[in-house]
Amino acid sequence: MNQARTIEPSGDMSFDAAAPGISREKMVSRYRQVRAFTERLCEPLEPEDYVIQTMADASPTKWHLAHTSWFFETFILGPGSNGYRPVEPRYGYLFNSYYNGAGPMHCRDRRGLLSRPTVRETFHYREAIDRAMLALIENAPVDQWRKLMPIVVLGLNHEQQHQELLLTDIKHAFAQNPLCPVYRTDVMSSTAESPALRWLDYAEGVYRIGAEDEGFAFDNERPRHRVFIPEFQLASRPSTNGEYLEFVEDGGYRRPDLWLSEGWSAVNANQWTAPLYWEKRDGRWFSFTLQGLQTVQANEPVCHLSYFEADAFARWSGALLPTEAQWEIASADLTLEGNFAEDGNFQPRACARPARRAEPEQMFGDVWEWTSSSYSPYPGYRPLAGALGEYNGKFMCNQYVLRGGSCATPRSHIRRSYRNFFPPDKRWQFSGVRLAGSHDT
Amino acid sequence: MNQARTIEPSGDMSFDAAAPGISREKMVSRYRQVRAFTERLCEPLEPEDYVIQTMADASPTKWHLAHTSWFFETFILGPGSNGYRPVEPRYGYLFNSYYNGAGPMHCRDRRGLLSRPTVRETFHYREAIDRAMLALIENAPVDQWRKLMPIVVLGLNHEQQHQELLLTDIKHAFAQNPLCPVYRTDVMSSTAESPALRWLDYAEGVYRIGAEDEGFAFDNERPRHRVFIPEFQLASRPSTNGEYLEFVEDGGYRRPDLWLSEGWSAVNANQWTAPLYWEKRDGRWFSFTLQGLQTVQANEPVCHLSYFEADAFARWSGALLPTEAQWEIASADLTLEGNFAEDGNFQPRACARPARRAEPEQMFGDVWEWTSSSYSPYPGYRPLAGALGEYNGKFMCNQYVLRGGSCATPRSHIRRSYRNFFPPDKRWQFSGVRLAGSHDT
Amino acid sequence: MNQARTIEPSGDMSFDAAAPGISREKMVSRYRQVRAFTERLCEPLEPEDYVIQTMADASPTKWHLAHTSWFFETFILGPGSNGYRPVEPRYGYLFNSYYNGAGPMHCRDRRGLLSRPTVRETFHYREAIDRAMLALIENAPVDQWRKLMPIVVLGLNHEQQHQELLLTDIKHAFAQNPLCPVYRTDVMSSTAESPALRWLDYAEGVYRIGAEDEGFAFDNERPRHRVFIPEFQLASRPSTNGEYLEFVEDGGYRRPDLWLSEGWSAVNANQWTAPLYWEKRDGRWFSFTLQGLQTVQANEPVCHLSYFEADAFARWSGALLPTEAQWEIASADLTLEGNFAEDGNFQPRACARPARRAEPEQMFGDVWEWTSSSYSPYPGYRPLAGALGEYNGKFMCNQYVLRGGSCATPRSHIRRSYRNFFPPDKRWQFSGVRLAGSHDT
Amino acid sequence: MNQARTIEPSGDMSFDAAAPGISREKMVSRYRQVRAFTERLCEPLEPEDYVIQTMADASPTKWHLAHTSWFFETFILGPGSNGYRPVEPRYGYLFNSYYNGAGPMHCRDRRGLLSRPTVRETFHYREAIDRAMLALIENAPVDQWRKLMPIVVLGLNHEQQHQELLLTDIKHAFAQNPLCPVYRTDVMSSTAESPALRWLDYAEGVYRIGAEDEGFAFDNERPRHRVFIPEFQLASRPSTNGEYLEFVEDGGYRRPDLWLSEGWSAVNANQWTAPLYWEKRDGRWFSFTLQGLQTVQANEPVCHLSYFEADAFARWSGALLPTEAQWEIASADLTLEGNFAEDGNFQPRACARPARRAEPEQMFGDVWEWTSSSYSPYPGYRPLAGALGEYNGKFMCNQYVLRGGSCATPRSHIRRSYRNFFPPDKRWQFSGVRLAGSHDT
Repeated sequence: MNQARTIEPSGDMSFDAAAPGISREKMVSRYRQVRAFTERLCEPLEPEDYVIQTMADASPTKWHLAHTSWFFETFILGPGSNGYRPVEPRYGYLFNSYYNGAGPMHCRDRRGLLSRPTVRETFHYREAIDRAMLALIENAPVDQWRKLMPIVVLGLNHEQQHQELLLTDIKHAFAQNPLCPVYRTDVMSSTAESPALRWLDYAEGVYRIGAEDEGFAFDNERPRHRVFIPEFQLASRPSTNGEYLEFVEDGGYRRPDLWLSEGWSAVNANQWTAPLYWEKRDGRWFSFTLQGLQTVQANEPVCHLSYFEADAFARWSGALLPTEAQWEIASADLTLEGNFAEDGNFQPRACARPARRAEPEQMFGDVWEWTSSSYSPYPGYRPLAGALGEYNGKFMCNQYVLRGGSCATPRSHIRRSYRNFFPPDKRWQFSGVRLAGSHDT
Repeated sequence: MNQARTIEPSGDMSFDAAAPGISREKMVSRYRQVRAFTERLCEPLEPEDYVIQTMADASPTKWHLAHTSWFFETFILGPGSNGYRPVEPRYGYLFNSYYNGAGPMHCRDRRGLLSRPTVRETFHYREAIDRAMLALIENAPVDQWRKLMPIVVLGLNHEQQHQELLLTDIKHAFAQNPLCPVYRTDVMSSTAESPALRWLDYAEGVYRIGAEDEGFAFDNERPRHRVFIPEFQLASRPSTNGEYLEFVEDGGYRRPDLWLSEGWSAVNANQWTAPLYWEKRDGRWFSFTLQGLQTVQANEPVCHLSYFEADAFARWSGALLPTEAQWEIASADLTLEGNFAEDGNFQPRACARPARRAEPEQMFGDVWEWTSSSYSPYPGYRPLAGALGEYNGKFMCNQYVLRGGSCATPRSHIRRSYRNFFPPDKRWQFSGVRLAGSHDT
Repeated sequence: MNQARTIEPSGDMSFDAAAPGISREKMVSRYRQVRAFTERLCEPLEPEDYVIQTMADASPTKWHLAHTSWFFETFILGPGSNGYRPVEPRYGYLFNSYYNGAGPMHCRDRRGLLSRPTVRETFHYREAIDRAMLALIENAPVDQWRKLMPIVVLGLNHEQQHQELLLTDIKHAFAQNPLCPVYRTDVMSSTAESPALRWLDYAEGVYRIGAEDEGFAFDNERPRHRVFIPEFQLASRPSTNGEYLEFVEDGGYRRPDLWLSEGWSAVNANQWTAPLYWEKRDGRWFSFTLQGLQTVQANEPVCHLSYFEADAFARWSGALLPTEAQWEIASADLTLEGNFAEDGNFQPRACARPARRAEPEQMFGDVWEWTSSSYSPYPGYRPLAGALGEYNGKFMCNQYVLRGGSCATPRSHIRRSYRNFFPPDKRWQFSGVRLAGSHDT
Repeated sequence: MNQARTIEPSGDMSFDAAAPGISREKMVSRYRQVRAFTERLCEPLEPEDYVIQTMADASPTKWHLAHTSWFFETFILGPGSNGYRPVEPRYGYLFNSYYNGAGPMHCRDRRGLLSRPTVRETFHYREAIDRAMLALIENAPVDQWRKLMPIVVLGLNHEQQHQELLLTDIKHAFAQNPLCPVYRTDVMSSTAESPALRWLDYAEGVYRIGAEDEGFAFDNERPRHRVFIPEFQLASRPSTNGEYLEFVEDGGYRRPDLWLSEGWSAVNANQWTAPLYWEKRDGRWFSFTLQGLQTVQANEPVCHLSYFEADAFARWSGALLPTEAQWEIASADLTLEGNFAEDGNFQPRACARPARRAEPEQMFGDVWEWTSSSYSPYPGYRPLAGALGEYNGKFMCNQYVLRGGSCATPRSHIRRSYRNFFPPDKRWQFSGVRLAGSHDT
């Protein structure tokens, strides 16, 4: 069991992997940092923990380790290395996630039925990929490198996404076990008082949102484009467990008038009475965390909410969820700081800072914030060419956008324009809520 | 079996039921027209046809007849008539569709398990409601009338929605029967050549969309508000069976790269190979229609597409689906004319008119046009108060907007700002596709 | 609604249709009687009632009417009449129940999705079949008649089975309707006191069971064969509602130790707390019957039990279910009398007779009695040739034998050797329980 | 990976654990042998292999190891040892299989979602139980020992049943993995020619079957009782792959007339075209075995058949399945020898011996033989008292009896009267078929 208080940061925050002139040396270092951080996250695990899949949405740790390697093998080493021979040809089938363009794949909900490759074999696979990748980064001819470099950067961002999923999936796995396994034991809970929620005003106007052309961004963040936004208000911080508890205790989960129709169906079908991982014992609320079962802290941002719960809570509050454009506009001038995976908390923390006059707090890190925006293409959206075009675009249906990153997101992975997305009934991510309003509401 | 070629129109197109000064006399006349049209649509049916429910999405004809009456009883007669006694108190349970605020309800997917009330009893129920409603319209005190009048108008619009559903549901029911029952026998298929598809250009700008404050509109069409729209192009007419057939024959249903991820799952789970009701016999395509099995006409607008199919077809065409704002902007100056339910075709027809230079054809009637817009609240949206607030708002999740009405929509029911909505896998409505584009595409 | 107190008997009890020398005249008369009784049972129904199917196990009345006619058409008229042309060729598909040897068939659980043929058309179908059948019975050449006659008799027994199913299926259909439709209104409930349960003793020995070679019997009742039976005891009458209620009130449905493992799963999955159609209102038990909702009568035989419930009740009683051999041995000398369909009660009645010393009461009629015997072939069993071999044999798996007939069984249909069978979780038949024991128990 | 050719036998064949005068010393030795054999079977496994559950019917190896220990803890140490404190109280919940009388239990189909306890912790649990058990066997006061001894013997037989399940479950798990893991590598396939199938005759009579009162047997084998059996014939050996292949190639899986109705549904629902683990590649049949993928050997007994397949094959062969009484009668004088788990083949082998005139071959070991007997209580059956009464009795419904043991059954575990049982659609056990007949057939 890992007893270390801090986890080595996964890399230089100022690293811009997509900068045209980035040196091979820097890329080697970056590659090593990102890959090593994945393995650091596995240190508290026993071999048995790597194997299980506790719902179709989640994947075994072992699978994450292999799939992220498969990504480099399939999209870089295969096309990029002359005469490259796959470590094990059948891995192409086992570790393809959803890329139809890359061939047939093992069924997603059967990933936990595979005891082989073993954990040791999986790490050997990673090592083989790393050797080949590092050789390629160092030695590829300039022309080839120009083509491959953006995919290497994409692969590293892809790996960072799986770092977060690895954490949320292992949390789900441990939570199913009546023995309540603990991932980390030594994290102190946040004791800060949460500052009072204030409303910040934003003026109407035609704004630009989306990623600029330079620097790395996923294809779904582009092109940068104009939107008309009426004036709006945004809460100064995410809503807290204490605030959400008032909703729960006011019968929030028993009042159909507060819910979307599909949300009300989800409440009844799944018998939801509180956020995921909450559990009432002898009149007190507990929450299963990566540090084990803990009492619910009123001052911490509420998390593990579905979109449906975030929406119902907003309605009950007489407020709204922000649109993703509102969120991005409000984040425009903020520093990218917060409680991230490298901090090793793996749990949102209360807002420690005294309230600043005009800026929202905790926009980055702690909890992903559900927006009311259906995940859809920006005007002029172009997916990447080939199988990599399946990375984002084909999921633009029946999902909702979340913004800002969480306590399980690597710090160097997040951006103001970053669009995370999940179906509205999912809640095993560190997903929370920040309220919005308008002068009408 | 009804042999009449034309169906009496359901009312004066210029009727604006929500106009403040509308006379009681006009309202009586309007009420009678709308209610009578529902019953006209039932004339071709045998008593047995009224009973069955062939999927959870559809309802028995008998249920539509009763539910629309229940609506008036529950939201007008009950609250509005002193000492009103329900025709049969248990109907409140049986014919409530989804209004949690109006009490518990019979399970939606069990509507076809009820042989009672019989058809005759159901018509008696309608008559009793009509007597009470007409008395109320004529005799209600002025103050009460002012409050109830908008709900009467809502009830008539509600009834018109169920006229369309009655038709699409009976079509689904007949299509399940190997005996291929026929609803109407005497309709000639359209023989016009479809004009070539042209692209119409629209300039970028901040536009206003949504219903004005005056006149009847559903709450989801309001408030009128500004949107920024980049320049775009719209197809001059809906896509045709002939065009869609090229997609089918090009392997459209076998190429995952053309589909949204959920769409591809739907294709495989349901083994879709063509639009709903299409069937290949001896190498020729047929389609089940309300006139029985017919050969697919290349020049007619394609219909019974899911959103997924419309989206995949657009992608295959190198085009897009329009947003609902684009559609509404393009419809701004058009006359509200087209092939509607009153015409008695109950099937889309080929565009007969020579192409006009600058205007899109067939924007109204024929087929509902899928837009790429997720069904969501307009900025400042306010649902109606009370249980009627469940009419629209709670469905604003995981559904997509369709515009323009169809051959099963009553002519006086449609508006430029009208927002129809269905989940993306549904295709038993007369739903088709009009392509859009941008200078990039 | 049928108000008549008695229902014309379906035929001469002494009729032995399979007797070799039976006259054509007698067969004509028998055919008419049986077919007419089916239609008498339909008289209380509205056209809408004929259409619905409220679970996959049940069929619409309309389907029973057509299927029994299809049986004659398929197995007699088709093979037997030169140049016979089917009334409607597609009926072969629609009304085949499960005979793979007779061609493809419509899916069983979709029988309620068909509004056509209408009720009127279905009766026309019956009439056409009757005309052809009566002509064939009267005019078939002797050789042909010798071959067809046994199948005619089989067809009439088949029709009688569907008379019972028609009643139990319409009971299920009405029971689903919150309006509680009533099939018959004028039947008085039985007021007799039920005599005390006595135990009758039977000696061990090698017995013969099964049908003799002469006379009609289904293939599953043959051959008659020897079985060794240890001494046993049998209850003098079926168990009553009053006795079963003690089991219910003793927590019978909440004690896993009383149940078979699959039974306990069924209790929990279906949330059973009492027999089918029982309902507790304000502390009193009611039961839905074909005469509407009635209070549960303590002295009537309990019915609508699954095998699981009969078995658990027996275990709770410190007794057993009889084997089918025990039941048949005990019935050997009894008169075939009881409360049958022709009596028009359609509900079991209390035992009226004073107890006879040495004979069990109510072995025939009232309720089918679950036995502990898995439905399996007798030694030397031979199914009928051809598609008719599918009549019984292929169901000899995971079903349990019931004996004695019920209040919905036609009197002339039952035999001592008659083997009814249903899966152990089914309870919409009039199925009850008679206890057995041994000196050990 | 275990390379040893032979596996140490699990004990003295002549051991009769239930003999009244058995010494404590012998019991200690027996306990050690049985427990050790379980662990020998785990030797080829990697830690990851212990964790997975590839269908609800199967359990993880880890679970088998813990559950068999839980059995001793719950039924012997808990009640038997003064002041015994459970190793880990929550194991009572996790490792209870189906004993409602022993308290609530973890859901059977979620056993593969638990990574903890780890494999190491599970072995520690076993060791703790072994220490306590051995102390108890050696030191329990005489009176207590008299009561506990039969349960110790039951626990050892229980453990042996799980030895077989451990093997069949790991086979299922490995078979799901596209990497085709191998459990044992060094077993040679059997090369013997299978002798021609002969029919052995048995006379009619009243026979006795079931276990005598002395010696260990499960409660379901008692009491010994009389049955009348008509004369019958039994095949001299189990049917072979070669014989079964003829059935397959004759379209056996495409002819509904050969199947029970539920069997035909299973064929279609599961798309069965051959026994479990068979796979056709390039026109040749292969079978997944614990030695990896092997070509199907025509002379080996066919196995991994469901009851449905055994029954259809018998029908196709113009034969029957034997009843369990027939099987037991035919086995009466045979020596208990055969291909068992201790031989380490884990795969049925061809009959090596020249045919003996009057005796059936391979009645024991190789493959379990499906009988046509529904699993039901013998006349006078009494389950064990308390929670142990759930061991067998509650499963006497919708299952069929198999006889004789298999290549995965420990040799000292089988008896002539042994009744194994599985639902008729299960086929992951080593289940095969021996034909029976009568003079009629």
